[in-house]
Amino acid sequence: MRNLKMILEYDGSAYHGWQRQVNGLTIQQVLEEKIAIMTGETVKVIGSGRTDAGVHALGQVAHFKTAVSLPDIQFLKGINSLLPRDIVVTALQEADPSFHARYDAKSKVYRYQIVHGPVRPVMLRHHVWFVPGPLDVERLREAAFHFIGTHDFTSFCSSHSDAPDHIRTLTDIRIETGRPGPIKIEMEADGFLRHMVRGIVGTLVEVGRGKHPVSDMPAILHAKDRRRGGMTAPPHGLFLKEVKY
Amino acid sequence: MRNLKMILEYDGSAYHGWQRQVNGLTIQQVLEEKIAIMTGETVKVIGSGRTDAGVHALGQVAHFKTAVSLPDIQFLKGINSLLPRDIVVTALQEADPSFHARYDAKSKVYRYQIVHGPVRPVMLRHHVWFVPGPLDVERLREAAFHFIGTHDFTSFCSSHSDAPDHIRTLTDIRIETGRPGPIKIEMEADGFLRHMVRGIVGTLVEVGRGKHPVSDMPAILHAKDRRRGGMTAPPHGLFLKEVKY
Repeated sequence: MRNLKMILEYDGSAYHGWQRQVNGLTIQQVLEEKIAIMTGETVKVIGSGRTDAGVHALGQVAHFKTAVSLPDIQFLKGINSLLPRDIVVTALQEADPSFHARYDAKSKVYRYQIVHGPVRPVMLRHHVWFVPGPLDVERLREAAFHFIGTHDFTSFCSSHSDAPDHIRTLTDIRIETGRPGPIKIEMEADGFLRHMVRGIVGTLVEVGRGKHPVSDMPAILHAKDRRRGGMTAPPHGLFLKEVKY
Repeated sequence: MRNLKMILEYDGSAYHGWQRQVNGLTIQQVLEEKIAIMTGETVKVIGSGRTDAGVHALGQVAHFKTAVSLPDIQFLKGINSLLPRDIVVTALQEADPSFHARYDAKSKVYRYQIVHGPVRPVMLRHHVWFVPGPLDVERLREAAFHFIGTHDFTSFCSSHSDAPDHIRTLTDIRIETGRPGPIKIEMEADGFLRHMVRGIVGTLVEVGRGKHPVSDMPAILHAKDRRRGGMTAPPHGLFLKEVKY
């Protein structure tokens, strides 16, 4: 059996997230069905991790096993011709038989996009969080600095997280005011808890709007209490940008 | 009666163009219906010109007359709260009673967006023309130069154009290779014929792909024959960017 590694881009607007589920179409299901049509095999596509309903990907990574010996480039073209317009395989290549998209991931990079101001965005409406009114990006930057390092992120992740612990190492967080484009908040960590990026972004935006002072950040982080963190930013501003191995 | 001037942004994907018609929803109809709800009046919204089905706008201009004396900012907020998410009024202000969005327009700027390469775009799929394979942007630039000036554009506009003449003055055409973004072709003229931007872009792309030499441009232009021009580029890469008065 060959082990094929794919890099995927998708617009999550129309899907119930990555992972197969009984009610609602998911990215994983679409991929498995289209690959099955191509190969005649029942395949299981393993992603680097789940993305929630409405969340997008620029560089999701997944792998699957197949006995079909089609050249990689033909495989890529074939899958892309079957996939709907909101999912595309940007790269496909044979990997080591032991490669595992989830277990081997060393870190992930997420991007969150925000537009603020008096007028709601139209072209980017499915890909940014619109925050009406002013937003102090310098305060956002100062607050973001406090998240870097190894912390217990309980104050920012879903209270329904079933992870054995909430300690993660955030190695980088950078904020780009892409004027005239949206504000881009990118963060890299060895792993992310459920809703963690959205909880961090929601808290940063509350700081940027003046609801919390920047100096509250350490106390919120140390509280390890979801009720102390800010709101959960909506899913449609979030992109899984890259998975590093 | 007050004469209100609006600047509009819209995603044309879901509409049958600007102008009201019997079969299919249009931007003009949506605006007239929402403004009627706000004002209780039957209003006619006059745009600077039509945009075709699937074409977008970043800066369409329109005007309408009303007896309602609501402050401009309240009018703008009210209309935007009623409009669907793919249409927004970005500015609204009272204009001179004689202002006419169509007759007073001095020039228009259109933008056309192209993505080329091996992999079809996902996030931008409704807002760019995907041209598979290579495209020589330098050749595109060289060919574009020939369009500047006062010409008869019959070779590039719809053969169903009912304009009394096909002579227009193109004052500017510029091509931006917004790597990593799409290629942007922007052009300004005193007026545009039906499908003219899309005919010029389709011809430029054929030159960029090597189907015509750059040196053919003058002959194609002088032929005044639609069959000599290149294909009509699809509507979804096109944006009405600005109307100048």
